[in-house]
Amino acid sequence: MSRPLPPNATIGILGGGQLGRMSALAAARLGYRCHVYAPEPDSPGMQVAASHTVASYEDTAALARFAAAVDVVTFEFENVPAATLDALAPLVPCRPGVATLRTCQDRLAEKRFLESAGVPVGPWRAVLTETDLAAGIAALGLPAVLKTTRLGYDGRGQAVIRAPAEAAAAYARLSPKPLILEAFIPFAAELSAIVARGADGATAVFDAVENRHHHHILDLSFAPARVAPGIAAAAQAHVTAAAAALDLIGVLALELFLLPDGRLLGNEMAPRPHNSGHWTMDACAAGQFEQHIRAIAGLPLADPARHHDAVMRNLVGPEGMARWPDLLALPGVVPHLYGKAEARPGRKMGHANRLLPLNSLAGLDDAGALRGL
Amino acid sequence: MSRPLPPNATIGILGGGQLGRMSALAAARLGYRCHVYAPEPDSPGMQVAASHTVASYEDTAALARFAAAVDVVTFEFENVPAATLDALAPLVPCRPGVATLRTCQDRLAEKRFLESAGVPVGPWRAVLTETDLAAGIAALGLPAVLKTTRLGYDGRGQAVIRAPAEAAAAYARLSPKPLILEAFIPFAAELSAIVARGADGATAVFDAVENRHHHHILDLSFAPARVAPGIAAAAQAHVTAAAAALDLIGVLALELFLLPDGRLLGNEMAPRPHNSGHWTMDACAAGQFEQHIRAIAGLPLADPARHHDAVMRNLVGPEGMARWPDLLALPGVVPHLYGKAEARPGRKMGHANRLLPLNSLAGLDDAGALRGL
Repeated sequence: MSRPLPPNATIGILGGGQLGRMSALAAARLGYRCHVYAPEPDSPGMQVAASHTVASYEDTAALARFAAAVDVVTFEFENVPAATLDALAPLVPCRPGVATLRTCQDRLAEKRFLESAGVPVGPWRAVLTETDLAAGIAALGLPAVLKTTRLGYDGRGQAVIRAPAEAAAAYARLSPKPLILEAFIPFAAELSAIVARGADGATAVFDAVENRHHHHILDLSFAPARVAPGIAAAAQAHVTAAAAALDLIGVLALELFLLPDGRLLGNEMAPRPHNSGHWTMDACAAGQFEQHIRAIAGLPLADPARHHDAVMRNLVGPEGMARWPDLLALPGVVPHLYGKAEARPGRKMGHANRLLPLNSLAGLDDAGALRGL
Repeated sequence: MSRPLPPNATIGILGGGQLGRMSALAAARLGYRCHVYAPEPDSPGMQVAASHTVASYEDTAALARFAAAVDVVTFEFENVPAATLDALAPLVPCRPGVATLRTCQDRLAEKRFLESAGVPVGPWRAVLTETDLAAGIAALGLPAVLKTTRLGYDGRGQAVIRAPAEAAAAYARLSPKPLILEAFIPFAAELSAIVARGADGATAVFDAVENRHHHHILDLSFAPARVAPGIAAAAQAHVTAAAAALDLIGVLALELFLLPDGRLLGNEMAPRPHNSGHWTMDACAAGQFEQHIRAIAGLPLADPARHHDAVMRNLVGPEGMARWPDLLALPGVVPHLYGKAEARPGRKMGHANRLLPLNSLAGLDDAGALRGL
């Protein structure tokens, strides 16, 4: 697939959550049909797609039918099994490809990759045994964070170890999965940067943002990050370098820790549109979902310049939904919901973007930036 | 239905074209499901809706099933038969209602309504016989335009009569349908204004725009209209007055002729999102489709202020699609396609919005505003 995907072609999306849904909405605006493949019936993505398949990621017959029905395949989250892309790749172009997926779904592979791409990361050790863990604690000190290498997100699959006596319990809870011990980083702020990269190697990088978490789940993104220009540019350079090293076709998000001395350390990356990029949907002419579709469809990337500053508020669980009626009435706030029937605690139900005049965010404190958001 | 429609409720849309499609995309962003009802399979709206019905507008059994499956019904074009809404109205709230639909689908009713609402219109005469036509020509002079009272759009169902000798042929071509003779208006510009009105009577009016047509089909909209502020405000006041007189719930568009002396004459109206409002999708925090969904769902209307000036280019037929690849690469241009498989001549395939800095359009000539659009 070297030529641009023509209008009315079909984009296959593995995964039916909100990222697939917003990708499908962007694809529709560009004249593409979407086919969403996910194990869950009536998933958010399926509600806005021209067609869908409800099947497991291991159902090779269903995957073969899916491949035959679509022109290109992408995935909306990196916990799709690599074997699923392995089954699809001989049948249909997969963007991003399985090598990128494997790198991003394993924290050890991710750390090694980031280091090889020239993105500094914090100290870490692989942990397969309790002996590894003890050696790791000795090397990195405490506190430190023990994490499963795979399938963790939003704080799941990890434990903070603050004292040596806590190590055994943390290991017992998370093993026998392969683990990674990461030094605790006393960061001044959490940043992220998102880049789109086309099949031709062209890139378009959005402004870096500052993120705040609540109970390990993204709560707020401030766009742009209120940091020195050199720091924001370094964050953008790191994600762009990582995308090039992956030979990525699609969108890559990189979360970074900003240290008190101004250094940046890469934390996690995701080869897909990212929660911390939702502000781009309303504050840029083309948001991250449109950029992702443009990249995988072989279209020229859009100008990533923001036309507004923005603050994104995640709507999580029942508390998030309780904000919804008020958010609908706030001037300059653009609300988004994901079509999930049940507002379970910790579930991402939607988000809202407050648009602010360009270059005004730096002059506002949190209260001024949020104002009811 | 006096309370706001809750998230995950289902909005029924009669009609499967691009206006229904873009309404469905806006509804999805607000967390609603859509059910599109149209006679044509695989219509643009159905491609992005959670469910659909392919059936004729006269199929009362299918309409009853549709009514049972949705929480509110709207229509995407005013040529849906009034009898269809008559069948649905006892079963489910219909917004706008059938009285509005009847008024807007008949040019005679529309003229009478606009006059009653205080919106000036050009001279006109009802024509049921050739004698009526002769009397109308005597009263209005020539040139004049003979139109069918119903089902005309984009220049169809009308004939310009420039000389008395052309009257008989025009009458023969358009009769025996009821007709209307309208005086030819030597306008300086064509404007339009769009208002949203909620169930509580609240209104939100977008900036008035200037429209240019090509072969009777909208080609360009310039937002805002480059006219004196009083003229733009009068256009907004006229559409707002008309919406109030209709007791409308939804969106109303009013096309107006601007005369060389600065007077405005109402021409046609449409009780739905309108092609001349597509610029709002990218130049306002909430575009006309979101406002329409907010109105019919009982949500608060969004601030209609534009954050950019804009020029909208329609993409019509094969010529329009030939522009598509270049438009994708133009910075600051937001492209939209409608998912139509075949680019037949005269068919609206998509549109593109050029975003311009706020208040910059007035200082640009056409070449400066278009720049490759």
